[in-house]
Amino acid sequence: MSIQVKLIESPNGIADCPGFKTSGVACDIRGKGDLELLDLALLTSEEPCHAAGVFTLNDVCAAPVLVCKEILTSPSAKVAGIVVNSGNANAATAEQGMIDAKEMSAIAQLETGMGSPFLVCSTGRIGRKLPMQNIKSGITIAAKALSEESQNSLDAADAILTSDTGRKCATAQFTYEGKTLTVSGIAKGAGMIEPNMATMLAFLATDLDVDNAALKNTLVQACNKTFNRISIDGDMSTNDTVLLLANGKSGLVPDDSPELLQAFREAVFMVCDTLAEKIVGDGEKITKLVELIVEGCQTEDDAEKVARCVGNSLLVKTSWYGSDPNWGRLADAAGYARIGLKEACFDIHYNEVPALISGIPQDNKLSEWKAIVAKKRFRITLNLNQGSGSFRLLTSDLSEAYVNFNKSE
Amino acid sequence: MSIQVKLIESPNGIADCPGFKTSGVACDIRGKGDLELLDLALLTSEEPCHAAGVFTLNDVCAAPVLVCKEILTSPSAKVAGIVVNSGNANAATAEQGMIDAKEMSAIAQLETGMGSPFLVCSTGRIGRKLPMQNIKSGITIAAKALSEESQNSLDAADAILTSDTGRKCATAQFTYEGKTLTVSGIAKGAGMIEPNMATMLAFLATDLDVDNAALKNTLVQACNKTFNRISIDGDMSTNDTVLLLANGKSGLVPDDSPELLQAFREAVFMVCDTLAEKIVGDGEKITKLVELIVEGCQTEDDAEKVARCVGNSLLVKTSWYGSDPNWGRLADAAGYARIGLKEACFDIHYNEVPALISGIPQDNKLSEWKAIVAKKRFRITLNLNQGSGSFRLLTSDLSEAYVNFNKSE
Repeated sequence: MSIQVKLIESPNGIADCPGFKTSGVACDIRGKGDLELLDLALLTSEEPCHAAGVFTLNDVCAAPVLVCKEILTSPSAKVAGIVVNSGNANAATAEQGMIDAKEMSAIAQLETGMGSPFLVCSTGRIGRKLPMQNIKSGITIAAKALSEESQNSLDAADAILTSDTGRKCATAQFTYEGKTLTVSGIAKGAGMIEPNMATMLAFLATDLDVDNAALKNTLVQACNKTFNRISIDGDMSTNDTVLLLANGKSGLVPDDSPELLQAFREAVFMVCDTLAEKIVGDGEKITKLVELIVEGCQTEDDAEKVARCVGNSLLVKTSWYGSDPNWGRLADAAGYARIGLKEACFDIHYNEVPALISGIPQDNKLSEWKAIVAKKRFRITLNLNQGSGSFRLLTSDLSEAYVNFNKSE
Repeated sequence: MSIQVKLIESPNGIADCPGFKTSGVACDIRGKGDLELLDLALLTSEEPCHAAGVFTLNDVCAAPVLVCKEILTSPSAKVAGIVVNSGNANAATAEQGMIDAKEMSAIAQLETGMGSPFLVCSTGRIGRKLPMQNIKSGITIAAKALSEESQNSLDAADAILTSDTGRKCATAQFTYEGKTLTVSGIAKGAGMIEPNMATMLAFLATDLDVDNAALKNTLVQACNKTFNRISIDGDMSTNDTVLLLANGKSGLVPDDSPELLQAFREAVFMVCDTLAEKIVGDGEKITKLVELIVEGCQTEDDAEKVARCVGNSLLVKTSWYGSDPNWGRLADAAGYARIGLKEACFDIHYNEVPALISGIPQDNKLSEWKAIVAKKRFRITLNLNQGSGSFRLLTSDLSEAYVNFNKSE
């Protein structure tokens, strides 16, 4: 009998997982004198814990990303937790950025008195030095405030947000041999969201007793199917980071139980999938969430190329914004993926309603297409009927408000 | 002594070149009852002429593109001219689209009574059948109206426009052995403008006596350096076509004169370059034209990747729109080209003013950057200092008005 993995209702973030403490505080990292806006979070494990990370592939990689990679270089590395700020990405900040990221990690360790290093993350404006005085006072307060309380955990989830309009939490649980195993997670997104993550941070915690290698393997698999299949604006960020911490507190060890490991993977996938969808659903000034399914390609890579061309096309996105079922723009964008699309084999559906079958427009369905693209969420399926490769991309429309929102920072 | 090639002032389009006749008429192709809007043009040569074409690389390729390619298959093919409509792209129109494109070409030949086939082009909405009755009556009127008059030539230049706000003409001339050689051209652009052309049409005419192979060679070289280095919205169209007709009327033959051939190439380049810049300058609802220069890459291909990532980034384009010198977004986009950019070697300049030198922000120049990005046209140079590969891309900002303009058709 397979293990039932379930998402819990009303997740509270990291503190849903036993053995983790959190806090979220305000220290005016944006330098605007706002002492209400939470902008620094600490996530810690009672005991040093195993950890794994997945990071941006951008050549311009923020200093904290490099510091995390360094800490996780050793296969047996254990960490104390994560320190993270919003409001400043500490990216494109040259040598000073590396010095600051390392100092941020060291201050967290000092202020919490823990024996293992802290992973460190930043998100926000690129190209500005971290305000280290504010960071330092923030960490000092945050260290004192650490607790297992739900409110603290929600504060931490709020403190990592930038242009997000709401916090993003997800927690999955299951029972195995009478014990409960938890995977909890929080994320931030909103803009600069594309392939291989992009301006998003996600932090997951679990009480499974598992080593770094198995954690990494699980996390990579989950990211490839979730965070790496969302796109808001096609911009990959310098700071994308997903971290997974495992403190072993459940007493469950997957070493000799493929069934347990499988259930754990499922739980990590479910948390990542839920957070990924929340990120797209809260994309900057979006009005529509579109599930784009590309099928019938010769390979999955081909399907991904088509999905990304269509999902990132300005003309496609603006037509969705206008509730215009302009399938011609979809066909155009699919064509410039240049994977050998044959028009005479090409089908397009809005939800279940055909727009194009074997390259022939189904114009009598126009009113049905219109009704579908007027919805806040809909599905578009492109079937090239040339093979069995497929790819699913969660994407969004592009609004005038997005342009206005991003025209200056 | 090298030949002086010059662009003429106040070009009048195709009719600037001796031996070509044109007309532009209104035949309500959009089906809106508008009998004022010019939407069909004929361009003809007195005598059958040589021709070459460069076309979209989109897998979804409009029917008229396929018909042109077919006509130009024979290396010695001669054509009567070009028939072109705006308002309907005749793309993604399946079998009927091919039948219609061929008929459009045949009607032009019949109505003009010429002995060679017509190349055929369409531009406008994708996925709708051509209104063949209107096309037919349009061609009939246009054939009767054909003349060498400048006003006719301007009407033809207007008839090919879609969302353009103004006509686009350029003419280059030079003198060789006492004879004048002319290259004249017209274009349309506005949206769906990206690599390898994209929703653009350009038609060039010359009175050089030259065969199809040399024409093609010249045209490909010119396109690669001009129309293929502009981007407005990153969308490659189904209909991109550049055609070059040569009627030999000047009596000049380049066969034994590399100098003449070189001057001709220069003239074709100058006309294409001028039209390309006019296309970006008239991009849909743009407010700024940006000359993006990427230097110091290991190869030209790498430089092109960086230029396209930066020039097509929504976050970069929106920041330009807002006159925000957000060089961090430039660095981010350059980084996700993933060509191995080294931050410590990376320089960014706005015009002549440094923003980043060897990866170090030049924050004391902030007011100067701001003044530059507030201009309607400026230059940004990214130097990776890792080699000698470079690429120049003409691109634009992205405005709220673009989104509004394209949200429905």
